[in-house]
Amino acid sequence: MSSTFGTVFRVSTFGESHCKAVGAIVDGCPPRLPLTEADIQPQLDRRKPGQSKVTTAREESDTVTILSGTENGVTLGTPIGLFVPNKDQRPGDYAEMAKIPRPSHADFTYQMKYGIRASSGGGRASARETIGRVAAGAIAEKWLHVALGVEIVAWVSAVGEIDADEIDAERISRALVDANQVRCPDAKVSGEMWDAIVAAKKDGDSLGGIVSCVCRGIPAGLGEPVFDKLEAKLAHAMLSIPATKGFEIGSGFAGTRLRGSKHNDPFVKKGSRLGTSSNRSGGIQGGISNGEPIIFRVAFKPPATISQAQMTADFDGNKVTLEAKGRHDPCVVPRAIPIVEAMAALVLADAALIQKTRA
Amino acid sequence: MSSTFGTVFRVSTFGESHCKAVGAIVDGCPPRLPLTEADIQPQLDRRKPGQSKVTTAREESDTVTILSGTENGVTLGTPIGLFVPNKDQRPGDYAEMAKIPRPSHADFTYQMKYGIRASSGGGRASARETIGRVAAGAIAEKWLHVALGVEIVAWVSAVGEIDADEIDAERISRALVDANQVRCPDAKVSGEMWDAIVAAKKDGDSLGGIVSCVCRGIPAGLGEPVFDKLEAKLAHAMLSIPATKGFEIGSGFAGTRLRGSKHNDPFVKKGSRLGTSSNRSGGIQGGISNGEPIIFRVAFKPPATISQAQMTADFDGNKVTLEAKGRHDPCVVPRAIPIVEAMAALVLADAALIQKTRA
Amino acid sequence: MSSTFGTVFRVSTFGESHCKAVGAIVDGCPPRLPLTEADIQPQLDRRKPGQSKVTTAREESDTVTILSGTENGVTLGTPIGLFVPNKDQRPGDYAEMAKIPRPSHADFTYQMKYGIRASSGGGRASARETIGRVAAGAIAEKWLHVALGVEIVAWVSAVGEIDADEIDAERISRALVDANQVRCPDAKVSGEMWDAIVAAKKDGDSLGGIVSCVCRGIPAGLGEPVFDKLEAKLAHAMLSIPATKGFEIGSGFAGTRLRGSKHNDPFVKKGSRLGTSSNRSGGIQGGISNGEPIIFRVAFKPPATISQAQMTADFDGNKVTLEAKGRHDPCVVPRAIPIVEAMAALVLADAALIQKTRA
Amino acid sequence: MSSTFGTVFRVSTFGESHCKAVGAIVDGCPPRLPLTEADIQPQLDRRKPGQSKVTTAREESDTVTILSGTENGVTLGTPIGLFVPNKDQRPGDYAEMAKIPRPSHADFTYQMKYGIRASSGGGRASARETIGRVAAGAIAEKWLHVALGVEIVAWVSAVGEIDADEIDAERISRALVDANQVRCPDAKVSGEMWDAIVAAKKDGDSLGGIVSCVCRGIPAGLGEPVFDKLEAKLAHAMLSIPATKGFEIGSGFAGTRLRGSKHNDPFVKKGSRLGTSSNRSGGIQGGISNGEPIIFRVAFKPPATISQAQMTADFDGNKVTLEAKGRHDPCVVPRAIPIVEAMAALVLADAALIQKTRA
Repeated sequence: MSSTFGTVFRVSTFGESHCKAVGAIVDGCPPRLPLTEADIQPQLDRRKPGQSKVTTAREESDTVTILSGTENGVTLGTPIGLFVPNKDQRPGDYAEMAKIPRPSHADFTYQMKYGIRASSGGGRASARETIGRVAAGAIAEKWLHVALGVEIVAWVSAVGEIDADEIDAERISRALVDANQVRCPDAKVSGEMWDAIVAAKKDGDSLGGIVSCVCRGIPAGLGEPVFDKLEAKLAHAMLSIPATKGFEIGSGFAGTRLRGSKHNDPFVKKGSRLGTSSNRSGGIQGGISNGEPIIFRVAFKPPATISQAQMTADFDGNKVTLEAKGRHDPCVVPRAIPIVEAMAALVLADAALIQKTRA
Repeated sequence: MSSTFGTVFRVSTFGESHCKAVGAIVDGCPPRLPLTEADIQPQLDRRKPGQSKVTTAREESDTVTILSGTENGVTLGTPIGLFVPNKDQRPGDYAEMAKIPRPSHADFTYQMKYGIRASSGGGRASARETIGRVAAGAIAEKWLHVALGVEIVAWVSAVGEIDADEIDAERISRALVDANQVRCPDAKVSGEMWDAIVAAKKDGDSLGGIVSCVCRGIPAGLGEPVFDKLEAKLAHAMLSIPATKGFEIGSGFAGTRLRGSKHNDPFVKKGSRLGTSSNRSGGIQGGISNGEPIIFRVAFKPPATISQAQMTADFDGNKVTLEAKGRHDPCVVPRAIPIVEAMAALVLADAALIQKTRA
Repeated sequence: MSSTFGTVFRVSTFGESHCKAVGAIVDGCPPRLPLTEADIQPQLDRRKPGQSKVTTAREESDTVTILSGTENGVTLGTPIGLFVPNKDQRPGDYAEMAKIPRPSHADFTYQMKYGIRASSGGGRASARETIGRVAAGAIAEKWLHVALGVEIVAWVSAVGEIDADEIDAERISRALVDANQVRCPDAKVSGEMWDAIVAAKKDGDSLGGIVSCVCRGIPAGLGEPVFDKLEAKLAHAMLSIPATKGFEIGSGFAGTRLRGSKHNDPFVKKGSRLGTSSNRSGGIQGGISNGEPIIFRVAFKPPATISQAQMTADFDGNKVTLEAKGRHDPCVVPRAIPIVEAMAALVLADAALIQKTRA
Repeated sequence: MSSTFGTVFRVSTFGESHCKAVGAIVDGCPPRLPLTEADIQPQLDRRKPGQSKVTTAREESDTVTILSGTENGVTLGTPIGLFVPNKDQRPGDYAEMAKIPRPSHADFTYQMKYGIRASSGGGRASARETIGRVAAGAIAEKWLHVALGVEIVAWVSAVGEIDADEIDAERISRALVDANQVRCPDAKVSGEMWDAIVAAKKDGDSLGGIVSCVCRGIPAGLGEPVFDKLEAKLAHAMLSIPATKGFEIGSGFAGTRLRGSKHNDPFVKKGSRLGTSSNRSGGIQGGISNGEPIIFRVAFKPPATISQAQMTADFDGNKVTLEAKGRHDPCVVPRAIPIVEAMAALVLADAALIQKTRA
């Protein structure tokens, strides 16, 4: 629990904003999988700060080293140690927070939970915590791809009040997603999204957004009824990402407005398998994958850390005005893309390995 | 995993639609808690079929017996065995399903996962599976209430396209919720909702809806970063309920449209504690409860089983028309209320007990 | 934890001495396994009281009912509910224990742990708790036998100071073990053991003993380094059985006296596989099965409940003389045989299913 | 499972003989505990190679770095990353093993389990794996000492055929244990043990031995019935240490020879608490600690790696003579002392934290 995720394919992570390093141990990765740092670094690069002028200026190369669990570029079946040093530590930026908890951040709740907190504030609530997830998720994704041909692609489908048109989930690729800095493949609105983010930053403010994700090539049969339904594990995984506020699968909240006769996905023959002609189920029925693409959406709130002045209270309850320093993103969804993909991969690799015990 | 939920306060359930009994084992319930069947039966009664003319006609009293773990009406700290017999078993109703998987139901995916399935179709995907959750959740809720003064209230906030007005989450009570059969405390629309459900039933069709839930009296500090954030566990719990398609906490998907300066919850002194003047966080920040009410919403799809004719395919891929028999609800949200409350209680009791190890 | 054992093939049990029933939920049993009560009852019969004049006179038929998880005599892959009623409840026998904790029994420690205890004393420390294990273990054993051809046989190798000669672990069978009431297949000493037990009973006293166990047909590769080595899981399983005080695998404590050159098991070709010419490893090397028979021994202390007068102290620390009433066995090892076999089967089935995720 | 141990206080480890580093993540350590590397290094120093002329000559300083989870020398409640580099890697020493599995070592079983193995042989079966345990155990021990006043002391009680006299478990200390290189506090036989180890080394052979351990200051009430009895968790922990073959608690195997009237531990008043006048229970009754010292013994086989020629077979089944190279200890018990202490501390810290959820 806590800092460990997964049952068979499981990751344990460590590290906060201003300690010596962050990293993870991946246990349960099948043996004989080709794996080097080159399989992991690309997703870390998509996550790292400083990719564009609207991401935090913290300088980190986020270069990963595999410490154990492989030999000659192949996994041994033993735990894979992953290590990423923290270079740009500036605890000094956070002096004011010693007295004033940032609104809607984790400073207050960490203090209430542990009776202590890192001087940088929320400790593990730092975005740097997600490095371990992304590195571990890249390994899960490699296995899913090699063993099952799975493809996972996430993209930005909304920034603030700007929605992208529906994307063809069968065809979307990471190359299309990365074609612009917002990571929204709808070229008509991605520029507008960019401008909105730049404007929010200029105002010392922040913006929320929505990330959509498709997982293709998932065989039917994954997911464990009743408490570990595949959508339940995905929801768990996604809501564990910092700043998330919602999750929906397939038709989601909008689907509640339909009648069953319009909502049901009729079965049809698709080559040698039984498929469905629509996909309001989002690829999962009764908690188990049905062979169709798994499609879900994740809501990200506007980042809590803003440089605009805020009226709030200090730990003693005194009214104060806070102008937060420190480095932060005005909108997290572009950098959240590889994190969503990583968490999806961790859920799916675990489910696929567990299913081997049911066959 | 699978049929077990929770780490310290944990429930394991068993039973499907047409076996001899359903039930659960609750392990980790603190000792010396007053507990008899009378603490559990009311929530089972709110869940059971036959409460109104729009719920399934299956005849079950759903009477629970505590088999172990208590003596003289007090818990011993040992596992609590819970037992509810299945009385009204009619596997014959399901003969047609042997060949035709019901669209958007679990017949197909159970077959793909296990290479076998119960003759009643989706096996554990049956609504009867939820009896174990509700019984276990009632115990969790009893402990939360006695130990911490927690109150959990869920209500119907939408049926199909009909939305209730916002409810005062500080004041809503189960008595107000149960004042009408739809369990929507907005009297202006509850009649309209009822009519919509009746109409759908008449058409052999079904309707979706949304359940909202508030948990009051939760102390600050519950929830385990990073993977077991409190909202992640709640999302997991809610998406494990049959027919759910989405979860959102606090401002949810709508909150993604706001800027941080409008979204953040400023701190204010509230008596002896530090609270927030708004609650877009939904009572959780950084994965840890902040002492404000926890508020979330759950999307339920229209039930997949409808008696209207549907064009679909049989297991062999042949086109067929299915007119499902069997007993089913045209809209599950009124009966889902105690299930949502139960799952919330299980998450919160577990989190509260785990927090004792951090103090 | 606590009342749940296993990761993939997992059992959760409930029930104490004088509640309404005892039982278990078995989760993770593979689907499509032929299974009825007739597969389970024989081991319960070997465990039940009243088999001979030296076992407790408590009258229980210990008849098991499968409540869920099978249909038409085949497993569905869903949780298997197991139910055994308690018939002969006599809490009145235990009145004296309200004030005086029985020496070396669990009355005192349960009170210290929970601040309450069942009136029958140690609650879950009752021998009736083991019914759930034996029933679940019989299912695990059925699967091991059908899927892998595994055979598990335990026998009594010592009673008090009387040791059996070494038994041929390759040939020992349950029929040979059950040939006498002591369940010691060494005919030369089994009569002597029986007389010793009868004599102890006559004296209101009790005797310890040792159970040996062999598991044949275990494929190489089972067991999870590093913390879940196969011998570690077996040790955990065996020391969780009431009244156990020790576990040794292969050469065990005696092997510590040898030099490596005498202790090592040389490899030899055995048909198409690589085997070892001796088996001081007990079938496990580096925590992983090597294909040779797994052999271990378990120490059982003399039962704590004796009817002889004992000088001790009551809960308040006052010196008292205790003459325990209630029903109890003077020596548990004959009835412990199916319990040891059950726990071995649970460990091995779980390990065999986990190994499917590594291949 | 696998490379993770514990439920609340839990450690995950990584690393094998010839990778870049070994280490661990400790999750669930309570916040606000004073902790620096100086609390961990002493036990690593007692474990490290090269302490005497009869330990492996591998040159490693085994210097630990805390990567995360503390600030200003105090724990934050977040995961503690622990890092120890591997310096003296010599995979070349192991070339012969590519074809010939060492008898009674893990080369063969790792190959069978994973279909691959590290060139150094047994991979995680390397003694270097234990560094993570010792480091994590030192943290557990620090917390046990600060929070509860617990003291844990292990010592060598037998080497080969040489047994130490019984040690006074109430008074034994690490200083007394470390007074000689064998770590046997019985001065009469420690010299003889030393000579036996030197002689075995000279012969290219190895010796087994027994480690005893006492845990003092354990409060009554720790341990979780029924499957996670305290002795079951200790047995699991000890049998997970490389080269162990047996575990016994309290009277152990010898206790099976006694009658109950001689074996039972009568209760007596001890100051303000109820204690026992003897301790054949080894501090645990019914799986729960009773407040007396916890005493157990662990059997270690003679190391499998010996330089003497051995007749065996290669992977293809051909008869061969193996003369193993590489560096190894002729007897592991002196260096096993801190490992046994570490595993005991991990079990007890976890049990003590879990017990907080029962109170």
